[in-house]
Amino acid sequence: MQLSFDKRKQDCLSKTDKSSIGSWDKPIRELCEKINKNNKYYTLSSCSGRIVLIKNIKKKTHDLFLFRSHNKINLNQLKNQLEKSIKINIKEGILFKQEPPILHVCCETLKDAQDLLFKAREKAGWKNSGIMSSQNDKRVICELRSTESLGLPIIEKNKVLVNEVFLQVLVREANKRLKSGWEKINRLEKEL
Amino acid sequence: MQLSFDKRKQDCLSKTDKSSIGSWDKPIRELCEKINKNNKYYTLSSCSGRIVLIKNIKKKTHDLFLFRSHNKINLNQLKNQLEKSIKINIKEGILFKQEPPILHVCCETLKDAQDLLFKAREKAGWKNSGIMSSQNDKRVICELRSTESLGLPIIEKNKVLVNEVFLQVLVREANKRLKSGWEKINRLEKEL
Repeated sequence: MQLSFDKRKQDCLSKTDKSSIGSWDKPIRELCEKINKNNKYYTLSSCSGRIVLIKNIKKKTHDLFLFRSHNKINLNQLKNQLEKSIKINIKEGILFKQEPPILHVCCETLKDAQDLLFKAREKAGWKNSGIMSSQNDKRVICELRSTESLGLPIIEKNKVLVNEVFLQVLVREANKRLKSGWEKINRLEKEL
Repeated sequence: MQLSFDKRKQDCLSKTDKSSIGSWDKPIRELCEKINKNNKYYTLSSCSGRIVLIKNIKKKTHDLFLFRSHNKINLNQLKNQLEKSIKINIKEGILFKQEPPILHVCCETLKDAQDLLFKAREKAGWKNSGIMSSQNDKRVICELRSTESLGLPIIEKNKVLVNEVFLQVLVREANKRLKSGWEKINRLEKEL
């Protein structure tokens, strides 16, 4: 078990990053590094939380996103992105979303997963977390997910559905939740 | 183990329902009954998905909700609820939210939890599900959660932030997601 876990960890961490961004985003990098320094764990994927414009469809396609930011945004930036998105003419409409930090961590044993889960859920406020171990996959994986989120229809029939006052509130609320997610990342890092 | 699990199940299911509604909401009742007929499982709590108006504050208080519906809503209903909510004068503002079905299931063994999780995540599309078993609590609990969600600021400074065209789209999108959640409930029931 030990050898095989170590070998899998080594293989996984030496692979090229397959995310579209190509590396850990900055607010979550130190947490990932701390997790990977521990013999019992390695990270499979991570996101520090993000603000996106995304097509309002269920099916996952490679061109689902019109805009993605892992940083706070401002009103002008959002207005520019909405103007650009309108021109692309997406018949299903477009959603604005703010999503929480999420981490997938491979754990050596179930006990290690339980330890991590307890720290994430009970100590660091990552309340939507759980163990995903299944009988069809020998690996024990923790999915750590925080709770901050927003989601709403924002463009339909090539029109922005909301006015500038709303956009201002939206930018403020999305940035506030992004920041709250970063605080959860820091809290978890301190618990480990 | 067997006896103690059975005893706990019996105790739990014979207790008065502590939810604010006082019973299972209809779309999820049959699923809960099917789960509770199985010796290996019993339900701790359930929600079939809902549409709510809620104060925009982090702290949980008993009067957080201005409106809650487990059924589809219509435009007039939402407009009435917004008018009522404005009068209450919540200084932090009010959010509109649509939330997915969620179920907490106590499982006899980890293997039973893995079986349930596999069916929920991989077969029935409850993608945000996991095992919450922790070393501080001998119980093995599955948190099953589907993915449908919306959330946005809707009232601030005693004003509705969006116009009627947006509210129409919002009602349609929230109802669509509620229905999608009910379909996930039916899919899970068929898998068990």
